[in-house]
Amino acid sequence: MRVRFLPDEVHVEIREGESILELAARAGITLRGACGGDGTCGRCLVVLREGAVQDADGIAVAGTGAVFRACRFYPVGDPVIEVPDTSRLHEHQVLTGDGEEDAAPLWAQEGVDGQLADPLLRRVTVSLVPPEPGETADDWGRLALALARETGGEVRADLAVLRELPAVLRARDWTVTADLGTAGGPEHEVVAVQPGRAAGPAYGVAVDLGTTTVAAQLVDLESGRVLGTAGTYNRQAAYGDDVISRIIFAGEHSGGRRRLQEAVVNTVNSLLAELRRLCGIERDAVRAAVCAGNPTMSHLFLGVDPAHIRLEPYTPAANFWPPCRADDLGLDLHPRAPVHVLPGVASYLGGDITGGLTASGFGAEGRTALFVDIGTNGEMVLGDGDWLIGCSCSAGPAFEGSGITCGMRAVSGAIERVGATPGGFEVVCRAIGDGPPAGVCGSGLIAALAGLRRAGVINRAGQFEPDLETPRFRSGDAGEEFVLVWARETAHGRDIVLTGADLQNLLRAKAAVYAGLRTLLAAVNLDQQDISRVYIAGGFGRFLNLREAVAIGMLPDIAPERYTFVGNSSLRGARAALLSGRRLAEIGETARRITYLELGEGTRFMEEYVSALFLPHTDMGLFPSVRECE
Amino acid sequence: MRVRFLPDEVHVEIREGESILELAARAGITLRGACGGDGTCGRCLVVLREGAVQDADGIAVAGTGAVFRACRFYPVGDPVIEVPDTSRLHEHQVLTGDGEEDAAPLWAQEGVDGQLADPLLRRVTVSLVPPEPGETADDWGRLALALARETGGEVRADLAVLRELPAVLRARDWTVTADLGTAGGPEHEVVAVQPGRAAGPAYGVAVDLGTTTVAAQLVDLESGRVLGTAGTYNRQAAYGDDVISRIIFAGEHSGGRRRLQEAVVNTVNSLLAELRRLCGIERDAVRAAVCAGNPTMSHLFLGVDPAHIRLEPYTPAANFWPPCRADDLGLDLHPRAPVHVLPGVASYLGGDITGGLTASGFGAEGRTALFVDIGTNGEMVLGDGDWLIGCSCSAGPAFEGSGITCGMRAVSGAIERVGATPGGFEVVCRAIGDGPPAGVCGSGLIAALAGLRRAGVINRAGQFEPDLETPRFRSGDAGEEFVLVWARETAHGRDIVLTGADLQNLLRAKAAVYAGLRTLLAAVNLDQQDISRVYIAGGFGRFLNLREAVAIGMLPDIAPERYTFVGNSSLRGARAALLSGRRLAEIGETARRITYLELGEGTRFMEEYVSALFLPHTDMGLFPSVRECE
Repeated sequence: MRVRFLPDEVHVEIREGESILELAARAGITLRGACGGDGTCGRCLVVLREGAVQDADGIAVAGTGAVFRACRFYPVGDPVIEVPDTSRLHEHQVLTGDGEEDAAPLWAQEGVDGQLADPLLRRVTVSLVPPEPGETADDWGRLALALARETGGEVRADLAVLRELPAVLRARDWTVTADLGTAGGPEHEVVAVQPGRAAGPAYGVAVDLGTTTVAAQLVDLESGRVLGTAGTYNRQAAYGDDVISRIIFAGEHSGGRRRLQEAVVNTVNSLLAELRRLCGIERDAVRAAVCAGNPTMSHLFLGVDPAHIRLEPYTPAANFWPPCRADDLGLDLHPRAPVHVLPGVASYLGGDITGGLTASGFGAEGRTALFVDIGTNGEMVLGDGDWLIGCSCSAGPAFEGSGITCGMRAVSGAIERVGATPGGFEVVCRAIGDGPPAGVCGSGLIAALAGLRRAGVINRAGQFEPDLETPRFRSGDAGEEFVLVWARETAHGRDIVLTGADLQNLLRAKAAVYAGLRTLLAAVNLDQQDISRVYIAGGFGRFLNLREAVAIGMLPDIAPERYTFVGNSSLRGARAALLSGRRLAEIGETARRITYLELGEGTRFMEEYVSALFLPHTDMGLFPSVRECE
Repeated sequence: MRVRFLPDEVHVEIREGESILELAARAGITLRGACGGDGTCGRCLVVLREGAVQDADGIAVAGTGAVFRACRFYPVGDPVIEVPDTSRLHEHQVLTGDGEEDAAPLWAQEGVDGQLADPLLRRVTVSLVPPEPGETADDWGRLALALARETGGEVRADLAVLRELPAVLRARDWTVTADLGTAGGPEHEVVAVQPGRAAGPAYGVAVDLGTTTVAAQLVDLESGRVLGTAGTYNRQAAYGDDVISRIIFAGEHSGGRRRLQEAVVNTVNSLLAELRRLCGIERDAVRAAVCAGNPTMSHLFLGVDPAHIRLEPYTPAANFWPPCRADDLGLDLHPRAPVHVLPGVASYLGGDITGGLTASGFGAEGRTALFVDIGTNGEMVLGDGDWLIGCSCSAGPAFEGSGITCGMRAVSGAIERVGATPGGFEVVCRAIGDGPPAGVCGSGLIAALAGLRRAGVINRAGQFEPDLETPRFRSGDAGEEFVLVWARETAHGRDIVLTGADLQNLLRAKAAVYAGLRTLLAAVNLDQQDISRVYIAGGFGRFLNLREAVAIGMLPDIAPERYTFVGNSSLRGARAALLSGRRLAEIGETARRITYLELGEGTRFMEEYVSALFLPHTDMGLFPSVRECE
């Protein structure tokens, strides 16, 4: 019993209870969807080509050409289903790094002679003196002693290693290579032992577990060299766009948590397969992994109940995770490869941030710095070498292109630059890939907001000026709207518009971010001018026009040279930990040191939020440069 | 495809490559066998009742009534096979304790108010303060802190525990009961957490992994009370009688090591099932185990390659074993129950001895003591509170009834007492169970040797006196032999005899034990009169007549009141460790402190051995009491 997907020509075995959406996900086809499979968003439309499908009530659809929602229907027999391009999440502009870092392996410099000082997996070759008659030292005792001499700490081995040890020790005359895992302390655990000297290095993998996208990097654990980087959409997207809908799916659907865990593990495994193929490496040669993600992603990756992340008082099951093994999770690495997940701080401040802070060199200057990662949540940390305070504000999905009439993710065809003449008569848009546009992504929305405000199309309250005299401004089905691109110039032949409701959504999103920052500053009695450096992390930062983000009042109006874009710092954080136990310990220290400010407590955040619901702000004094350019 | 065994009416699924012997073992029917399935001993004869079987060369046997060796034949179709009583290892006089100990739980006294002080699994109930809005402590952090307060040390949990933790904590309003495992130190690992207060105690199991028999004891881990004890034959017997034949089987047969591991685990599981039924306890309520066995048994139980135990220079894979989990081994306990295997000293001195030493109170008096456990190997340890020296001498299987014409194990029908009139005209034998005898067990053989020597039937060199004038002395197929019981009085209607070759086997066995002891004494420059206490451990000791063992020169001729029989001290050692982390640590200390004397090194042992090949010894001065009674 299989489903055949077109035009991919992928076949996938039917499993009891799996919808067409889930079957497609297992087949590697990620469908669009924003409702977590509830059948309400209508983004996952597919076409029946042969056979039949039925919904949960047994109502069947048959006949070629029938269009149905993949999330609500289940296969009958062996249907053939076509997945139109418009229903797919497209490959893909997954942020995997900033290019530069790969050329100069950052952490390799810390070792001696191009060798890493303290990777999480050390490869050690030892030659033992064979036992003499009358000696009673056991095989493992002999090896453990030699390894402890190399590492300076206790070395443990589990049964799986001991089982084959006698033959391994004697296969190459008592010379063996042991791969030793550590969590950063002096203690090591044997991951594997092989006879003789190993021909090459051991490999490790750093993984950024993003809600939307997942990126992985294969690293040589001897030199620290990055061998390859790959990214793709998180297959969990089939179960909901954001962390909240996935937490709900995990709790409300039978086996939901297991399905989400499998989906993200399958995503990582697909990247691992790509990287291994690229680098010509066997599965078992990859012997350590470090993963970084937000708390929900970390819970779901490990199969841990995330329910209370979204329920008051928002308590995660754990902020620090025990090291586990590849085969505990189903990851395609050496089965005993240690897998570390970076520690978080609170339910909405996770290992992607703690890792990102360490990897971006946050606080190294000893002056007050701000770290910001804006997605559905705006996570930020403020501090210097001595103190750290962090928060997470719910920006909503507007900046990810969701909840906006013509919003879309930052993929090919998404408008990322917008210019307008005064009054909005002329509008110039540029889409990613320079082709005809299909919608507007987060950075494009900020650009539009800034551009239309500058052009006088929008007033300070974020509403359309009532008496605009351009045909672009009109009354649509959903109230007032402004046409950014006329239908004849778009990829799909429909107008790309911004509605009044869109404006309010964007205003609320940017206000949440800025209010979060203001609340942090107030908590430590500082002013935004005290911030000597701002680190902008994540995919959003990549296309962001700083001047526009300041112009709409989302980011503080300080000197542009104080801003640094740090790219996918979550991935860099994971790699930093993979290549250095000291870094891993440092990230743990950072996680412990951050004071988390729950913005829902007290009234300060709400006051700041209301003040920020203007362009750029009720208090224009906070945005001197914006005042100047008007 | 199944085999049906009669008269048991047990059906077992056929697996590729399994002989009838192995199929029977899986069905719980332990056949006799001494050759490790090589087809040479002819003890595993069974009868074909229906269908057919064939050997490895494809030569088939069919037709009802055909008798064949179970180890050499494989099923064809679905045969029906009868296993005659004479081919079975019989239930059973497995030594599980000394009766007395069960009434007065030895280690319970160490706790307070009838509660154990430091069992390997502690049950702790804590009530947590629920998280308040604004608090960021995670669920696990909150619980870990409370548990650390109770235990005084770090508490760890793995993913399996964390996965369900949020729901468990909230199910009974933040009161939970945690079962914490330890290896004796201050660190604990969460085995399981359940909501609310637990209704009863957690249970643990102590296991004696004997080569021939396996015993298990179910214990209440709160009070230390023994709830039940069970014993049975080790199902590994299907693969060979002694450790050497099993090591060979493990190495030379495909999947041999796995099959041996499964066989002993199945044996333990059958005992666990019996104990659970007896005590009305669920599988998951049993949450810790400690096992003690000789080094080969420990290796095979854990699935570790034992090959080099029998190859020079006799190096075990490990003497100390990492704690593992029930589900790593396939044991029917709570899947995360910690399983400890007691540490050994060398390839032939294992955890049964180190545990036995500690459990029997060896060395507590601070004076020189000797611990002896005689089976196929005679293991012994000499020492006081300050020093310990041990050795193992190969006594051969004679004392287990193997390699002796009419030898058998110490089961019902085995002769254990022998008396003879001068010249051997009259002989009186008593069998275990007081029924008609079927053979002679180890203690019976010692009794026979002593009795016949006293009666003048055997000379000092252990040979028959040439001119005995009794019809009991005759020339048989295998040379001279002496009839202990005439056919008309035996269970099987055949004479029970001792041959000249039997005498030499027994002489060599007792000489090895005594020579081992003499070599130990010489190594520390002591005399046997310096030994203030002798502990006799194991099943052999149970039926042993001390005077006779001294009379044949096997045990030292010292005052009988210095001898103590300690029963199954291996099982007691396992239980002692289960009930006290300090005891477990003590056993480890003991294992580290014992200096192992390899008897094959140097010439001393061989000299002592040759001197001991007399009854009782070449140096009669060593056996003053024996000289007196002649």
